[in-house]
Amino acid sequence: MFYFDKRLQYPVKVENPDPIFARMLQQAIGGIEGEIRVCMQYFFQAWGARGPTTKYRDMLLHTATEEMGHVEMLATAVALNLEKAPTSLQEEGAADGVVGAVMGGGSARHTIEGMLHRHLLSTGMAAFPANCEGVPFDMSHIYASGNLAADMYCNVAAESTGRVLAVRLYNAAHDAGMKDMLHFMIARDTMHQQQWLAVLEEMGGHEGTLPIPNSFPQEKEDQKNNYNFYATAHDGSAPAEGRWTSGPSIDGKGQFSVFQNKPMGEEPVLGPARPDSAAETQQIG
Amino acid sequence: MFYFDKRLQYPVKVENPDPIFARMLQQAIGGIEGEIRVCMQYFFQAWGARGPTTKYRDMLLHTATEEMGHVEMLATAVALNLEKAPTSLQEEGAADGVVGAVMGGGSARHTIEGMLHRHLLSTGMAAFPANCEGVPFDMSHIYASGNLAADMYCNVAAESTGRVLAVRLYNAAHDAGMKDMLHFMIARDTMHQQQWLAVLEEMGGHEGTLPIPNSFPQEKEDQKNNYNFYATAHDGSAPAEGRWTSGPSIDGKGQFSVFQNKPMGEEPVLGPARPDSAAETQQIG
Amino acid sequence: MFYFDKRLQYPVKVENPDPIFARMLQQAIGGIEGEIRVCMQYFFQAWGARGPTTKYRDMLLHTATEEMGHVEMLATAVALNLEKAPTSLQEEGAADGVVGAVMGGGSARHTIEGMLHRHLLSTGMAAFPANCEGVPFDMSHIYASGNLAADMYCNVAAESTGRVLAVRLYNAAHDAGMKDMLHFMIARDTMHQQQWLAVLEEMGGHEGTLPIPNSFPQEKEDQKNNYNFYATAHDGSAPAEGRWTSGPSIDGKGQFSVFQNKPMGEEPVLGPARPDSAAETQQIG
Amino acid sequence: MFYFDKRLQYPVKVENPDPIFARMLQQAIGGIEGEIRVCMQYFFQAWGARGPTTKYRDMLLHTATEEMGHVEMLATAVALNLEKAPTSLQEEGAADGVVGAVMGGGSARHTIEGMLHRHLLSTGMAAFPANCEGVPFDMSHIYASGNLAADMYCNVAAESTGRVLAVRLYNAAHDAGMKDMLHFMIARDTMHQQQWLAVLEEMGGHEGTLPIPNSFPQEKEDQKNNYNFYATAHDGSAPAEGRWTSGPSIDGKGQFSVFQNKPMGEEPVLGPARPDSAAETQQIG
Amino acid sequence: MFYFDKRLQYPVKVENPDPIFARMLQQAIGGIEGEIRVCMQYFFQAWGARGPTTKYRDMLLHTATEEMGHVEMLATAVALNLEKAPTSLQEEGAADGVVGAVMGGGSARHTIEGMLHRHLLSTGMAAFPANCEGVPFDMSHIYASGNLAADMYCNVAAESTGRVLAVRLYNAAHDAGMKDMLHFMIARDTMHQQQWLAVLEEMGGHEGTLPIPNSFPQEKEDQKNNYNFYATAHDGSAPAEGRWTSGPSIDGKGQFSVFQNKPMGEEPVLGPARPDSAAETQQIG
Amino acid sequence: MFYFDKRLQYPVKVENPDPIFARMLQQAIGGIEGEIRVCMQYFFQAWGARGPTTKYRDMLLHTATEEMGHVEMLATAVALNLEKAPTSLQEEGAADGVVGAVMGGGSARHTIEGMLHRHLLSTGMAAFPANCEGVPFDMSHIYASGNLAADMYCNVAAESTGRVLAVRLYNAAHDAGMKDMLHFMIARDTMHQQQWLAVLEEMGGHEGTLPIPNSFPQEKEDQKNNYNFYATAHDGSAPAEGRWTSGPSIDGKGQFSVFQNKPMGEEPVLGPARPDSAAETQQIG
Repeated sequence: MFYFDKRLQYPVKVENPDPIFARMLQQAIGGIEGEIRVCMQYFFQAWGARGPTTKYRDMLLHTATEEMGHVEMLATAVALNLEKAPTSLQEEGAADGVVGAVMGGGSARHTIEGMLHRHLLSTGMAAFPANCEGVPFDMSHIYASGNLAADMYCNVAAESTGRVLAVRLYNAAHDAGMKDMLHFMIARDTMHQQQWLAVLEEMGGHEGTLPIPNSFPQEKEDQKNNYNFYATAHDGSAPAEGRWTSGPSIDGKGQFSVFQNKPMGEEPVLGPARPDSAAETQQIG
Repeated sequence: MFYFDKRLQYPVKVENPDPIFARMLQQAIGGIEGEIRVCMQYFFQAWGARGPTTKYRDMLLHTATEEMGHVEMLATAVALNLEKAPTSLQEEGAADGVVGAVMGGGSARHTIEGMLHRHLLSTGMAAFPANCEGVPFDMSHIYASGNLAADMYCNVAAESTGRVLAVRLYNAAHDAGMKDMLHFMIARDTMHQQQWLAVLEEMGGHEGTLPIPNSFPQEKEDQKNNYNFYATAHDGSAPAEGRWTSGPSIDGKGQFSVFQNKPMGEEPVLGPARPDSAAETQQIG
Repeated sequence: MFYFDKRLQYPVKVENPDPIFARMLQQAIGGIEGEIRVCMQYFFQAWGARGPTTKYRDMLLHTATEEMGHVEMLATAVALNLEKAPTSLQEEGAADGVVGAVMGGGSARHTIEGMLHRHLLSTGMAAFPANCEGVPFDMSHIYASGNLAADMYCNVAAESTGRVLAVRLYNAAHDAGMKDMLHFMIARDTMHQQQWLAVLEEMGGHEGTLPIPNSFPQEKEDQKNNYNFYATAHDGSAPAEGRWTSGPSIDGKGQFSVFQNKPMGEEPVLGPARPDSAAETQQIG
Repeated sequence: MFYFDKRLQYPVKVENPDPIFARMLQQAIGGIEGEIRVCMQYFFQAWGARGPTTKYRDMLLHTATEEMGHVEMLATAVALNLEKAPTSLQEEGAADGVVGAVMGGGSARHTIEGMLHRHLLSTGMAAFPANCEGVPFDMSHIYASGNLAADMYCNVAAESTGRVLAVRLYNAAHDAGMKDMLHFMIARDTMHQQQWLAVLEEMGGHEGTLPIPNSFPQEKEDQKNNYNFYATAHDGSAPAEGRWTSGPSIDGKGQFSVFQNKPMGEEPVLGPARPDSAAETQQIG
Repeated sequence: MFYFDKRLQYPVKVENPDPIFARMLQQAIGGIEGEIRVCMQYFFQAWGARGPTTKYRDMLLHTATEEMGHVEMLATAVALNLEKAPTSLQEEGAADGVVGAVMGGGSARHTIEGMLHRHLLSTGMAAFPANCEGVPFDMSHIYASGNLAADMYCNVAAESTGRVLAVRLYNAAHDAGMKDMLHFMIARDTMHQQQWLAVLEEMGGHEGTLPIPNSFPQEKEDQKNNYNFYATAHDGSAPAEGRWTSGPSIDGKGQFSVFQNKPMGEEPVLGPARPDSAAETQQIG
Repeated sequence: MFYFDKRLQYPVKVENPDPIFARMLQQAIGGIEGEIRVCMQYFFQAWGARGPTTKYRDMLLHTATEEMGHVEMLATAVALNLEKAPTSLQEEGAADGVVGAVMGGGSARHTIEGMLHRHLLSTGMAAFPANCEGVPFDMSHIYASGNLAADMYCNVAAESTGRVLAVRLYNAAHDAGMKDMLHFMIARDTMHQQQWLAVLEEMGGHEGTLPIPNSFPQEKEDQKNNYNFYATAHDGSAPAEGRWTSGPSIDGKGQFSVFQNKPMGEEPVLGPARPDSAAETQQIG
């Protein structure tokens, strides 16, 4: 179970509120690279973790709980960036010192055009769990497979795209407070990338974990097709050489090679449509 | 651009059609761990690939094109597993040799209850781009970030959860043809896991790629918070030791440590609601 | 604006309530082939109809309003089929004369397994706007393009898949009342298919409407590529002959031919990633 | 920011694991009446709360944090109910003491048919953030309007449908541990219904809060149409009398009456389609 | 079943068409606070209404039918606001008297940038069932629980957020016709808030309806945890006093108190992963 | 299975990159009228095609494969239009020769406001499978019914709305390269409209295919209600005459007439709520 502290994980200050930056920050809240995603992903991985030790379950709980605080920081940042946003399309509805209109040289109306309209119409100038285009977060993006190594790679992927996003936000930002907040978040993403990779190392690295799942007896998989790169160019030209076209495989359990792909199966034959299947009579054999 | 061959990548045979297994296979078509996802993910990564070499773009195209053939195999397998499925809830609508009813000891009606109803009602006994619960595939799951290393981890994640799924299908299957098809697909997933990891190795491994994105000057990130594990237990107890709590970091650029998490920020203060914001008067300061 | 009559468009009787058939009927309510879809599609086409006459707007309103009554009939049919459905997984929770358990020879528990669980858990034994797998209707399926001929084809498509669905439900049904209701709905779908095709005929048939939109000066489209079938077989084999491979085109404005497809463009060249774009340094030129 | 305790809010015990009940419990996790919804709804309301006092913000944080612990309990309950679920459709894959097969009198195969297949295929026998049909939770259901009174009614609605769901689960359950867990959750829903209604009372009750938003000068709304019930029966019959057809209004600011509805507007006239709008030429005036 | 009148419920006039206001109005059509939602919610509640009287079913039908006319008004308003919207990004594509460009001081291009692009690309300048960001309406937002009191609170919530939205649109609008239309809709929302609360009063008010569902014997719920506020602050500080922390409960059936929350359960113990579950071998044991 | 050629189907050149046009093009990639949709629709129709001949299966494969190349062209066009897009909201982040800022007379900031933010934040200036508002493509739009004639109408509908979209993009475009690409795509849409109509002609035209499905014995449908237009005007006025109100039906199997619609059914009667259904006690009979 859980407890909260009213204070934020890290300071969130906005000197020059900017409704367009509020829109951008939504991607870090409700985007697929965002913080709700990692928070919930780590929680569901923890709650379903099976194995002889609770060590990984606990680690996941520590970090999921940390991420919850990041969602809070970002939601606060959005609300602060919306503090002076315009509410009217009327000429007199001039922007009141808001950066958007000033920097864009435009009117309050101009600023509204670039904002997420739901910030004005649905939330009363606050964050909501959607991305920078207003698309609500869909929890199918919570990856938790029951396989620890697969989950760790899902987490590295999440933290990699997450840090890419945070860097883009940092580069786009103009406010010192926002840059400060983001330079903290970028650092946490660095640690989290490390952390999931450290689990993989602890589990034995490539040799100890691959191919995932390593509990499937590898002799049962097709031995002729598990370490060869399939080339599918129409003209049959060979692919450029790479680490994956020759030499020992990454897991040390095979040798890479190249295979010019071709059909090994037949043209499929389906039975005719049945009389009661509501096909056209022309399809019923 | 693209070409097709009518023949399948690999043989797809079904001796004992089973509508419940058809439902299961849908996860490998339209599930988040499925083949449409990897196919489209590799295509979109390829089409947006930027960099001094076209090598990675080409590799992605080779494999995306291969995956398209896997979707085709699975769609064929679904149609074949539905060949004898019942179409009526009436008593006389007896299952005609279909495994479901036989193995479950039940009637045609029983088999329908376990099937995806859309196989009967919407497709006329064929595959559709949805998962094993009938939830349509949502293309927000195509991860393509513009950062090559992040994308490779997304791909390893996809192939790891993909092979986990394929193994589960293999374990659940009872038909020799289906097991044969899956033992091929499991092998290809092995290779694809290797392949994306090989790109990461070619890019310089952990040191050469981390933290992702490595193009952000790391001195700009918060130096006090990028290699320490945040412990968030309510009672302040120390987390169990792991590869991530002490010692050199995975990228060799820092030292792991543990930090008992606490608020560094303040309680946030938002401005009062504005008179024209449709808040309750009690909220308007 | 609108008015209602408490009485139903057509009698809805259920002698032998069947929770599994209730699940099937949901596809006709909230499926993409269902009645909410056509109702709303005709309404939105009507409300956006532009042109010198209000004739088509009015026709759309007549039929959209009719369809609303079909949704009502189906929702009633679902509620009636759920009247005796079980509510408990406990052994003593025996099915009370419900067809599902009787016909399947199973217990109340068995019937629940095949039901939509949301009928029990979310609606208290009533219909909801979702399909037969419980996937909510997504109004992106309301096709209304602003082009009258395109919209008519969307409507023919909707009524064709709609009648296919209604026939499948009729074939699956065992209750005389349900078969009676469906034989009425099948008839209405017949009329609606006719009706939208009649608009196309009134607009001048293939010659008067094609290619859609006919307001684009056809000389502006690529004259070399508008009536030839592209063959994309890997081995360059010619496609089977059909109405579309030779002879006059359907709109009488061209001649069909076959073209062995090949690239007319170049390999695409994208610029390198920019330094501030959060790509890996390896991608930055 | 947040802290966790490894221990659960309330004991979660399962004596007789039942994969079908695991499916049902998913509605309380990822359904629209479920716990992720209330947890996140209260958080987003808190993070966007504006007003002269932080009292309501704090109250929301207390309860949102509590709800997080409910999600955890339910996720644990799902994992425990899946402990002995079958993994294979093969005859020999007999259910190992699982309630489903026993109570339904069926085989392991039978139990799989009624399960959420993603419990087997995607999660490795654990919870995921989706409802009882496998539909992922969509965060558009987080209602947080920026108006405190509106939000309180959203919360009462959420806790009312939530307690309805919990009661249905209680009635469906057969396991003493599950009934114990649910009798706790039902009690918490009682309190939460009270709590949001208490805020409305503290704000002045119906008179102090209605019509919502009360900050809009009520003289600006249409005075002839704000307290009359519109009757829309085709035959013009009067609606049955109710509290809403006559007498003082609930907020004490008007008198109820009945109005036989009729059009006050005209038939709408839209301009013709423009030549460049890709309409059919027949629509271009 | 249903009937229509070509004329609108209330006049819809637009003197100064504004494509940006057209975008805003979409929230009232296809937003979660919008009119499709209430229309369909009341219909589905009516069609599933069970109880000794048809009074509530009828009331719901009256108002659902009324709401259908509101959707029509709004769709008309959107089409009228789009009448002069630009269709081209070319410099010469100057805005033809449209307010957007004029008020923003910008070009036709500028106006397109702020518009919903689908108004131009998908609908030919007409409304569609999506919100102000172009997100399609998802019918999972139709709340109809089968419990009359719960449904009434869902309806009050819908009309409260609905009137908040209508007021925000009114405040943002600059056109007299639009303000007139909205001042009517705001009034109807006032009545509808009253109406659902009146049902609750008729059912016996708080005492007669709470806790919802009132048909569950309250002695079965956990008597120690149904009227106490759980405080979850990390530092154990007491929450501010409120109507919900002490005194009689709202339903008169209990006494409010405060409970410093703490775990009552244990750390959960899940079984190890099974050998055939595609976990990593490290988890099996 | 499939092969690729690195070269594009048709040249894609962009002289004046325009991030706003990149946004528009997304509709042709991930919109419901777009190319992913037709590509996947034709594939799934092919993979499920049943009937005595493989001719239609093959035709579908030829064209599905062609469409894959169109997705590639469009994705390339998006990436090229984003080449000079701004990445920063800071004043100094001036647009570097990008058309958006130039033509709109605005700054880099101005251009960002009109862009899809995910082009900047999520993809690093590349295409993704979403529409022009950033809504991800949802594969429920893949229509494949198992009835060949129904599917052909779905395809005509797709190519009609597709060509409407392509024409709108052509009209909106300012770049010669983009106009050239689109004039090719418009031509292909012309052919594809023809092609699916040609199948219908080959199947026997209206008489040979209608009503769809033609395999349902038409004498089983309600003979009194299959060729009459239902008029639902409140005042009982007759609808305007049209091809659908009198004369022979389109399929030559009936005679059109007009029917003033009225209820043929009764007011529906549902049973009372059950005691264990979590309704309010007031609903339990």
